[in-house]
This record gives sequence, C-alpha cells and structure tokens, in this order.
Amino acid sequence: MSAQATMDRLCIHTATTRPLPLEVAVDEYAAAGVAGITVWRDALAGRDPEAAGRMIRAAGLDVVSLCRGGFFVAGDAAARAAAVDENRQIIREAAAIGAPLIVLVCGADPAVPLPDARDQIRAGIEAVLPLALELGVKLAIEPLHPMYADSRSAINTMASANDLCERIDSPNVGVAVDVYHLWFDPTLEAEIARCADKVFAFHVCDWRTPTRDLLTDRGLMGDGCINIREIRGWVESTGFRGYNEVEIFSTELWALDQRVVIDRVVRAYRQHV
Amino acid sequence: MSAQATMDRLCIHTATTRPLPLEVAVDEYAAAGVAGITVWRDALAGRDPEAAGRMIRAAGLDVVSLCRGGFFVAGDAAARAAAVDENRQIIREAAAIGAPLIVLVCGADPAVPLPDARDQIRAGIEAVLPLALELGVKLAIEPLHPMYADSRSAINTMASANDLCERIDSPNVGVAVDVYHLWFDPTLEAEIARCADKVFAFHVCDWRTPTRDLLTDRGLMGDGCINIREIRGWVESTGFRGYNEVEIFSTELWALDQRVVIDRVVRAYRQHV
Repeated sequence: MSAQATMDRLCIHTATTRPLPLEVAVDEYAAAGVAGITVWRDALAGRDPEAAGRMIRAAGLDVVSLCRGGFFVAGDAAARAAAVDENRQIIREAAAIGAPLIVLVCGADPAVPLPDARDQIRAGIEAVLPLALELGVKLAIEPLHPMYADSRSAINTMASANDLCERIDSPNVGVAVDVYHLWFDPTLEAEIARCADKVFAFHVCDWRTPTRDLLTDRGLMGDGCINIREIRGWVESTGFRGYNEVEIFSTELWALDQRVVIDRVVRAYRQHV
Repeated sequence: MSAQATMDRLCIHTATTRPLPLEVAVDEYAAAGVAGITVWRDALAGRDPEAAGRMIRAAGLDVVSLCRGGFFVAGDAAARAAAVDENRQIIREAAAIGAPLIVLVCGADPAVPLPDARDQIRAGIEAVLPLALELGVKLAIEPLHPMYADSRSAINTMASANDLCERIDSPNVGVAVDVYHLWFDPTLEAEIARCADKVFAFHVCDWRTPTRDLLTDRGLMGDGCINIREIRGWVESTGFRGYNEVEIFSTELWALDQRVVIDRVVRAYRQHV
C-alpha cells in the first residue's frame, strides 16, 4: 500500500465546488493549501481564458487540466463536424488558460451502435490532434463507467482506452484514470501498468452505497468502497507523478457551504488518497 | 443478424410482472402464448414448491429457472455460512419446483474488497455444489453490471464469470448472460464464444436513456439502445437453444395493468429479440 498522498499533489476540479465563481474557488483552494486546479468550462463562461490563467497562477495554483472536450459521437456528419470544431475551440482555450491537458469524455449516442461510436471517437481525436500538437496541448481519453455507455462515452474500460491510444499512437494522446469509472475492473492493475507513460491524469472520489443517482451522487474519498490508495499505487508504479484530482459531482455537497466542502475534501484527501 | 426469435423460446420472469400472484401470472403467461416461466422466490412465498411446479406444468409452461441464489459475500464467517445454508435451501426448492437451473447473483459487500469477495463467491459455490449435483440442479453465475459491484455482485464481466467457471470446472456451473449487464463490453462477443456450452441462460430487457434509477428503470426490448438480437445471435452461435428470458424491473411497468404489460412484452419480443 502506498503512503499518504502529499498536499503538493492535491488538485480540485471546479465542478467539485460548482456553486463557487472561478475567482472565489481559486482564492479558497489556495487558502486551503490546494496546489492545483482543473477548470471546467462552465467556470470560464464570460471570462477571458488568458486572464483566468494569469489569475490562477498569481494565486499560486497550477492549471492541471481543462474539462472537458470530446462528445465526438453523433448520428449525422454535420453534428460530428460541429463537435470537431468545438474541440478545436477547446484546445485553443486550453492553450490560452495555460492548461497542458484536456480531458475527453469521448461521447456516445443511444442511436449509434457502439462499434460505430468508437470509430467516430477515433476519427474525432485524429481530426483535432494536429492543432493539439501545434499548441502543445495533450488529450486524455477518460474511460467512463459502463452506466454512461449510452450517452456519454463508448469508451468504458481501461483496456479499450489503451487500445485506442495505441491505435492513435501520438505522444499527445493518453488516458485519464478515474477511480469512479474503473475500480471494479479485475484487469485494472494490469491495464494501468500497460498504459505506462500514457497515464496523463488521475481522478479520485468514491462510490457510495447506495448510489442514489447515476450522475450526481459521488462520494468524498472514504465515504464509499473504492480502494483509492491502492489504485494510486498502481498509477504511481507507472512513473506517474502528476496531481491527484478530486472530482466529485454531488448535489449533497453542492448544497453546503463550499468552504466546508473544501475542508472536507482536504481531510478526506489526507486520510484516503 | 439472426432471425426473429420464436414464441416457443419466450420465457417471462415473474419479477417482470411482480404485482401478479404466481397463479395469475401462470394463467396470463399461458394465455398469451408464453412458453416458459422463471420463478422468483418472492412469488413462491407461502406456497408449496412441488405443488407450484405441478400447477405451472399443468398450464403448459416450462419452469426455466429459479431466481435467485447467491449473495455469498459477507464480512464475517457466520454470515457466509448462513448464505451457504440458504443456498442449499434454494437448491432444494429448485428441485421441488422442477427448475433445472438457479441464477446466482453472487454477492458483494462495500466493506469486503473485491478480490476477497471473489474468493468468497467461489468458496460459496463450491460449498453448495455437491447438493446441486446430487439433486441435478445447475447453477448459473450471472455477471452483473458494474454499477452493482458494491453490494450485489463482485462478478461484473463476462470474462470474470468465465474465469470463475473454469476455476470451478463442474458440469453444473455455467453463466447467465443478461444483455442489460453486459451490452457495452467490447469483448462480449469473444467472451460469449469462449463460454460455449457453459451459457446456461439468456436474459433480455433494454437500457433506457436516461436511466432514472439504478435498479428499477429497465426498459422493454426496443425502448433502449441494446443490440439484443445481435447478442442473441452470439449466444446461439455457441449452440445455446434455451429460452430467451424477459426480466424487466420497472416501477413504470409494475404500475400498469399487468395484462397490458404481458401484451407489450410479447410484442417487444417479436420485434426486438
């Protein structure tokens, strides 16, 4: 079992404290000793991304990644072309804010068979990859929990994310390992090892029993059954030295004073990550 | 793509029409031209299983399986021993009602790490296997959707169900393939082929978008995005000639006139299975 994670590797996603405006989130994270921030695009609405990046760095925080690109799957070609355009815009935003990485929720559509969806995802990533290379932005394929295979991502296992990475074979395309989506997989340790230096990001939260909502009932680390620290050990065995990113969608936590939430995140991080 | 399924292979689970007492379900299924019934234990409450089996056969229906055994996982040994006793009782009930098969929801516990849970499942099955062999009852390991890995089953992929079968290596232990739990898996076709003559059962329903509840929002076949007929083709390519079992947990359907539900099941079966 790995040792406790260090505070200099703690990153929080703005979606974890969704009610906070970006500026307030940055101040509160910095005050709590958080080292990194992953910015969700809704938190950037109405703001200049370059100025936002400067503001974040001035507060002493690293911009860890921009969430999220992807959603390449659609029944008609025009919608797929629009998704490619949108992802190019996201890559420009990442470069502007100074985010080295974009997390891709790759997309799915209940009307598109999964094998076709997977082809569309590969085609979408390959279409935006030249711009990502040009602007020095990396792309992380995030395999999503199978309960999102209908409408969010047709990439639902670490193995298939690895397969897709190998197929695309670019230094700028890797994988975001999120414990919530993958913890149950008996092949997880082996597939993380196989991913090796393609592990671009590591996300943590917990799986609650019972889980009352498919989208917004994630738990704080320690409030569920995921072997988070063990999985972090597997990730670090690949040589990964990036951030441990806390990404929790929870209507319960969003209803609280967000300073209390940040304190709880820090405590849970120290105890369970 | 396979041809349409035939009515002589249509089985309905009593849980699909949960509000109906067993006797009424049997009459209504038979009247609708349904050929088989899988009996859930709650439908047997207060009834003599031998008499129930005679009643079902007298109505012209096959008893396809008894649902459900399993739940072998627990934090303490006394609870695991109690689960083994309970499963022996279920095997006796299956023999009494004349069910050739018991479906196993293998069990999980958020306080038991998954590797330990998987060991406990194997130990539990091996403990009850001698009685199953003696009474001529088969046991089908049902890999469950990963969203149930915390509290219902630590067996969440077709591959791990196959692995467990191979490890136990008994003619009486096989797999129940349920499209709801497995449809998204890129290895499904290959793993069904690997399962071969160990495919003991085939369950159908559909995945709704959005899915509003983790347990009781399954769809009628055709109301979701699962490639049911294609998966049936994969199953039949193994030589499987058993029933296509309709197992739908749906608060929406349970709220309707159950005769209407049975008619819809038959129509959905003809069109989408």
